Amino acid sequence: MVVTGLGQCCWDTLTEVGEFPLPDSKTETLRWEEQGGGPAATALVALARLGLRCRFAGVVGDDAAGTLIRNGLSQEGIDVSGLLTRPGAASQRAFIMVERTGGRRTIVWQRPTGAPLSPAELEEQFWSGSAFLHLDGLMEEASLHGAREARRRGIPIMVDAGRMRPGMRELAGLCDYLVAAEQFFLDLGWNGSEEHFARLADGLGPPAVTVTRGDRGSLTRHGGTTCHVPAFPVAALDTTGAGDVFHGGYLFGLIKGWPLRETVVFASAAAALSCLHLGAQRGAPRLDEVSRFLADRGISVPSA
Amino acid sequence: MVVTGLGQCCWDTLTEVGEFPLPDSKTETLRWEEQGGGPAATALVALARLGLRCRFAGVVGDDAAGTLIRNGLSQEGIDVSGLLTRPGAASQRAFIMVERTGGRRTIVWQRPTGAPLSPAELEEQFWSGSAFLHLDGLMEEASLHGAREARRRGIPIMVDAGRMRPGMRELAGLCDYLVAAEQFFLDLGWNGSEEHFARLADGLGPPAVTVTRGDRGSLTRHGGTTCHVPAFPVAALDTTGAGDVFHGGYLFGLIKGWPLRETVVFASAAAALSCLHLGAQRGAPRLDEVSRFLADRGISVPSA
Repeated sequence: MVVTGLGQCCWDTLTEVGEFPLPDSKTETLRWEEQGGGPAATALVALARLGLRCRFAGVVGDDAAGTLIRNGLSQEGIDVSGLLTRPGAASQRAFIMVERTGGRRTIVWQRPTGAPLSPAELEEQFWSGSAFLHLDGLMEEASLHGAREARRRGIPIMVDAGRMRPGMRELAGLCDYLVAAEQFFLDLGWNGSEEHFARLADGLGPPAVTVTRGDRGSLTRHGGTTCHVPAFPVAALDTTGAGDVFHGGYLFGLIKGWPLRETVVFASAAAALSCLHLGAQRGAPRLDEVSRFLADRGISVPSA
Repeated sequence: MVVTGLGQCCWDTLTEVGEFPLPDSKTETLRWEEQGGGPAATALVALARLGLRCRFAGVVGDDAAGTLIRNGLSQEGIDVSGLLTRPGAASQRAFIMVERTGGRRTIVWQRPTGAPLSPAELEEQFWSGSAFLHLDGLMEEASLHGAREARRRGIPIMVDAGRMRPGMRELAGLCDYLVAAEQFFLDLGWNGSEEHFARLADGLGPPAVTVTRGDRGSLTRHGGTTCHVPAFPVAALDTTGAGDVFHGGYLFGLIKGWPLRETVVFASAAAALSCLHLGAQRGAPRLDEVSRFLADRGISVPSA
């Protein structure tokens, strides 16, 4: 049993600054860290930390960042046989400045220069033993192909919809669980009400649709009802990757066969814990950390 | 014959952005490059490109950046036997955002976490065959020790004074050529006039004192007279490291025994050429590039 993921991976530099720099200034950082990031890659790292086997497909360049991304995923125990290296290309990079006071987060990023994964590059080996497919929709062609292939094979699909992108509507129609950022629904014209969310979610097609709204929690539409799960209040240092860790926790609950509400509560706890650390992947918690966090709040995790 | 340099080296990430990012925004870069930087290290890279043998002493951490710094200097043919690695420490890093329009340059940087070079770590081997010592004054104790040791051995000394720092006045008094950034003289209370510069320069002690002022050229005080050398107008992409390349060109002229004015003109040409590329070291020109640049402007380089 393995969870297969397909999408973006990148190498992030995270810095903590007292205040966001003024243009033309020189600002000394309070902290400087580097680690992997990217929606699909981070969701798999979260899932691997929770104890599940994962396999990742994506692309990197043959630069130093590509090596760091690959080694980082391998060190988490993730099978990177589907992670291809594009010769002469640059990997995706991001420089993230988090303000100590004020908490504003500013990202300067570089698009990967290599070709995205093509459908032909999703080999048979990628599917071997796959119990779930997770897609962040960032490589349109390969994602759509992967979703169709997963349906054909009877493998359930989760789609992380960060915003409305080409192919995202079709991808939403192919998946079982659409777990979207608020921006995706705003792109659809959402007015922010629960009723409007229900109407939009029902129109998208998947049996379960969740929208995450940061510290305002999440809404999940399933079986004709909508449930709101509040976010756990924590003293967040950095919210980078919190949504991706939420996806990892969500996948974990689904694979364990937990009820959807418990699954979302678990995902929220994992995401909250991830905000206590700088960066997307550093703070992704282990299962015992999430269980303890929930137990401290009188919530018991369904037997794993 | 080798030029020995002691001071700072770092690993720079340089990005070109359309406009300086707003706080809390996500900005895609137009370009993303990584390369070595740091005043003393960049001056030596410039000198090595011009064809001279160089030896560098400084510190890096045992992180990925430290390896990249060391390899970068080695690839330029610089002897890095004096570059020490501090276990468990982070190397100096900088993230530099250059605006395509407007040209503002914003730096977010990390101080190295390892101990600076100590006087005891400047071993005999560092001095072997040394014809000139270049100091950027960024490791106070080792720099002062190095300057005294060079005087004892009769090795001429250039000091790059970026700003007024502890020990900088003493270091200025020990050197033969003080080549300072404008900020250093502003820190001394300079009112910007040639007369006041002459008075301040004469009070510092070194036989030759130069102040560089970016695209407004430089002033040099020597033998009781002050000479102004204009900057060469170029379509600058990025001025990072231009002052350091100026030091490299200056050292080259001195070692070749050229008159001081010709030396400064040559240094100005090297610095101007370096501004055509992103980053401190990428644009440091080779001797034939500087000669051609000067010849195109009707200036011939003294026989090298």
